Amino acid sequence: MIRVLGIDPGSQRTGVGVIDVADDGRCRFVHAQALVLLQADSFAERLGLLCEGLEALLDAWRPQEVAIETVFMDKSATSALKLGHARGAALATVVRRRLPVSEYAPRVIKQSLVGRGAADKPQVQHMVRLLLNLPDAKLQADAADALAVALTHAHMSATARRTGASVAALRRR
Amino acid sequence: MIRVLGIDPGSQRTGVGVIDVADDGRCRFVHAQALVLLQADSFAERLGLLCEGLEALLDAWRPQEVAIETVFMDKSATSALKLGHARGAALATVVRRRLPVSEYAPRVIKQSLVGRGAADKPQVQHMVRLLLNLPDAKLQADAADALAVALTHAHMSATARRTGASVAALRRR
Repeated sequence: MIRVLGIDPGSQRTGVGVIDVADDGRCRFVHAQALVLLQADSFAERLGLLCEGLEALLDAWRPQEVAIETVFMDKSATSALKLGHARGAALATVVRRRLPVSEYAPRVIKQSLVGRGAADKPQVQHMVRLLLNLPDAKLQADAADALAVALTHAHMSATARRTGASVAALRRR
Repeated sequence: MIRVLGIDPGSQRTGVGVIDVADDGRCRFVHAQALVLLQADSFAERLGLLCEGLEALLDAWRPQEVAIETVFMDKSATSALKLGHARGAALATVVRRRLPVSEYAPRVIKQSLVGRGAADKPQVQHMVRLLLNLPDAKLQADAADALAVALTHAHMSATARRTGASVAALRRR
């Protein structure tokens, strides 16, 4: 069994989701939440809160692998830049714990969960609930996105194990 | 006297410069270097190296205030995004030490040191050497840029003290 932490980075809210992946590839829900960063006095302090929240989560749940969304560059330059700050702070935090990090584009996550790279958010969230057997759970949107990237990593790793391909090669498809 | 750390963030090299600012506003060179991040195996690991290098520097030199360049948005979206990651990792590191951070646009730094917002890099580096009395020192370019933002912070703080204006108000000019 491997415990995977998924991160959906954002400078206002960062979604985090933890799942356990059994050797046969089945996934079990462990924990999900949004780290809300809006109470900070400045943008820089939001990043500090993000790192502190993430470290508390790593201490509490002890994931062995981490999966994180890449930035969708169609956003405005300003929002991509803000997102880059949050993502950089998050990546630095997990890398410093010597945890392996895999990165997945939003399109790859949608393709992996729904079977269509152009799927919309409600479809992705529906599949997250279905795959983790959380039919009635109220999932905060960023937390659901974090579970989605964790599930994508579980699927990609399972496919890589079956086919002998590296996850990096699969992600490039 | 106040010890100021200037940071010129970058995902390949991050410049850092430490100066002491006397009560009369005079600045003294303390330390400058470039944290070279290229030996890392991945982009994420560069960010980890950046945070570790920065923390070692904070431990060694114990600055009381931090000044950092903002991102010049005329860069390509991809390079701005990479820079955003480095800047986010750096900001999170200093904020977590509860150090006050001031941010300055490249144009403001040039205006403050050379008197012209459109000054070129060699002019800025010349003024850094002159103001810190380092006429013959070989300064690595990123280290010089880090000293430039530290000097800008010293000038802005001195002006703010004299006029009673806040540094934030001066930066917006």
